[in-house]
Amino acid sequence: MMNAMTGNMGGTGNSTSPHPIPQNQASLEHLTAEAEKLFSDLEELSRDVAGVSRPSYGEAETRAFEMIEKFAHKEGLITYRDNAANLVVELEKIPENEEYILIGSHLDSVPQGGNYDGAAGVIAGLLCLAEIKRSGKTLDVPVKVIALRGEESAWFGACYLGSKALLGKLEESEQELLQRDDSRPLKDHMIDCGADVERIAKGEVLIDTSKIKAFFELHIEQGPVMIARNLPVAAVTGIRGNIRHRKIKCIGEAGHSGAVPRWLRKDAVFATAELITRIDDHWTTILQHGGDLVATCGILTTDPQHHAMSRIPGEVTFSFEARSQYEHTLAAIEALLHSECATITYERRVKFEFDKPVKTPPAVIDQEIVDRINNACIAEGLPVEAIPSGAGHDASLFANAGVPTGMIFVRNRNGSHNPEEEMDMEDFIRGLSVLHRTITEFNL
Amino acid sequence: MMNAMTGNMGGTGNSTSPHPIPQNQASLEHLTAEAEKLFSDLEELSRDVAGVSRPSYGEAETRAFEMIEKFAHKEGLITYRDNAANLVVELEKIPENEEYILIGSHLDSVPQGGNYDGAAGVIAGLLCLAEIKRSGKTLDVPVKVIALRGEESAWFGACYLGSKALLGKLEESEQELLQRDDSRPLKDHMIDCGADVERIAKGEVLIDTSKIKAFFELHIEQGPVMIARNLPVAAVTGIRGNIRHRKIKCIGEAGHSGAVPRWLRKDAVFATAELITRIDDHWTTILQHGGDLVATCGILTTDPQHHAMSRIPGEVTFSFEARSQYEHTLAAIEALLHSECATITYERRVKFEFDKPVKTPPAVIDQEIVDRINNACIAEGLPVEAIPSGAGHDASLFANAGVPTGMIFVRNRNGSHNPEEEMDMEDFIRGLSVLHRTITEFNL
Repeated sequence: MMNAMTGNMGGTGNSTSPHPIPQNQASLEHLTAEAEKLFSDLEELSRDVAGVSRPSYGEAETRAFEMIEKFAHKEGLITYRDNAANLVVELEKIPENEEYILIGSHLDSVPQGGNYDGAAGVIAGLLCLAEIKRSGKTLDVPVKVIALRGEESAWFGACYLGSKALLGKLEESEQELLQRDDSRPLKDHMIDCGADVERIAKGEVLIDTSKIKAFFELHIEQGPVMIARNLPVAAVTGIRGNIRHRKIKCIGEAGHSGAVPRWLRKDAVFATAELITRIDDHWTTILQHGGDLVATCGILTTDPQHHAMSRIPGEVTFSFEARSQYEHTLAAIEALLHSECATITYERRVKFEFDKPVKTPPAVIDQEIVDRINNACIAEGLPVEAIPSGAGHDASLFANAGVPTGMIFVRNRNGSHNPEEEMDMEDFIRGLSVLHRTITEFNL
Repeated sequence: MMNAMTGNMGGTGNSTSPHPIPQNQASLEHLTAEAEKLFSDLEELSRDVAGVSRPSYGEAETRAFEMIEKFAHKEGLITYRDNAANLVVELEKIPENEEYILIGSHLDSVPQGGNYDGAAGVIAGLLCLAEIKRSGKTLDVPVKVIALRGEESAWFGACYLGSKALLGKLEESEQELLQRDDSRPLKDHMIDCGADVERIAKGEVLIDTSKIKAFFELHIEQGPVMIARNLPVAAVTGIRGNIRHRKIKCIGEAGHSGAVPRWLRKDAVFATAELITRIDDHWTTILQHGGDLVATCGILTTDPQHHAMSRIPGEVTFSFEARSQYEHTLAAIEALLHSECATITYERRVKFEFDKPVKTPPAVIDQEIVDRINNACIAEGLPVEAIPSGAGHDASLFANAGVPTGMIFVRNRNGSHNPEEEMDMEDFIRGLSVLHRTITEFNL
């Protein structure tokens, strides 16, 4: 069954039709008004000229924490801040030696961003706890919710600050990064929020990851796939890693555009165009064989100091980024990039110069957790389809720290990091219902 | 014979070996020292910080005229300035109704340019006349030499000023163009040189082109073909025209580089790379079928305001220039450009926006004159191979005014318009000998 369902994952196009609209109601549909209220209160306290702004380790983020705490206390849940100043919510105090499920996401936003990126996961966790508390249900595995700080890189130029601090992964140098608006270092902002910056600077692991049975993050999809596929909710199959070259240079030879025939040219633009087209062919082949890959040359330019309409371009610089859920695919595309450059160097007598690549490994999503989420989707009457995450998330850090990790994507229009992000509340409630069902049916 | 000789003209590569070094001496080898002296005197009077500078309708150009006149008078030749202030040299006054051969090129240079671009043709003409005068030979068709002013666009932003003025083709607005260094209008510079700016402004044709039996221009090659082919001298087969788009825009859709799969992308860089690669394929096919074409995208850039390594590029702008000796090839490549854009628009869901193309028709070289030059080459023991001119020349204006026109290229290293241009004196003497032989053997 899963094989058939994952048929679109790596496809070069999509030959099947979008899913039909689900007919049944979500199990937690009665929470719709409360969810709407929570999102609108959150928007209210962080509204900016356009969209919302909740700076990492900043005041609006703290106000958001206080709003969550207020709701939690009203529901009889308990809350505390951890040593990295993240907010934790529990049904009741879980004994130190007991294993538990952790639901988390972040409450900061990019400047003038959307209200849902991050916050959807925290509010989903909170409503899960409230629903369990109200129902008086007892769980096989206890559950905590964590609202993380500082996931967005927009404020300090580094991302995952709250989860890195908690997991002992925040570099001491990162505490010196300056906030884009007030130019104060991250360290001061962390102290203001009550974080133990000294233990964090030492790289102490401030959470016992061996006790986390599973980590769940619900998040809006930042791409357009679920809109295109009419898929309200999806289990994420993996978080893509990447290989990046900020600057590759193709060096040919400038010359008179009229007087040099094709066989004597060393045209950097025609060479680079052929390289990109060859990479595109490999990309298609990899997808046709069921692989996972996206590739981008976001920056491409002839030399503005010397280029001219009637001059054979002697130099082109371009960036290259490939992302995949699979380490071996990243290695393959890197090797293909170099072998195609070698062929083009030979055929077109240009040369390519590479900067040092920066590599981020893919984060492995736990297959058992994917299966649990998919089963919950089916029970909620929802279609199932494999969706990878192209962006990184707090979940990646827990996954890479050895915690079995899963993610639930909720359909969203217009991407994220902008005021136009648009999640239907109906879809959120479906995602919340899938999360709640997965948690409450979790057994050992 | 000519077919075999022109085998390399349109080839995609060059499968035959370069020509062997000619063994015999050029017929005018005895003029070597005089030629060297003329070039070095010319260099002396126009030396700049680097290379030479002989501004169009400027003082150094006039000094060059005076140097040519001085040599001509010493040889017993007669000289005068025409109504466009160009310099004319004759063996003896040719009656107004008599047909004659005109040898010409220009004496201006680009700023800090090389000494040979233009001047080689004037000095060759001058030495031809001197040789004929000294030998006492009588010609079937009398010969004049013209040293034209203002061929280079570098000074006023417009080219062929001296020949346009003479042929009634200088736009009135062009007289208002300002010189790059002194900011005075072309008109004032023309008056200083003695040109009849009022008749020129009216577009009067100041030369009776019906009396010009043939126009010859000897010029250095501005490309690398003759170096690569070991070809000291060549008859030019045609002067390439062109079609130019200064700015074509490919508009796709920006997006998160990790979160948008291939089948949902509208990537402007991948689309443009495919377009260029398809044009390159057509180019190869056209050459394989014996056509003449060069194509260049000298400027290519993603949007510097919005491009980023992790952003799918939503826009690319690029220039496109194609040049060919054949009008039908220019029309074909223009049609192919549009049809490939249509295909890519369909397949990749991007769109292309074109600015208005600027078109310059090819200048037709007279085949009979090419044959005469080639026969002279053979008589001089030189190899024969068809070479098109990628750049425009004063010769184009005479050709387009209906004068049977031919050009003789002399091998040259390092292109032109720079101080590194490098013509061997031995090659110049071979070119001069070919010119002299063609002229003196010219009969009706």
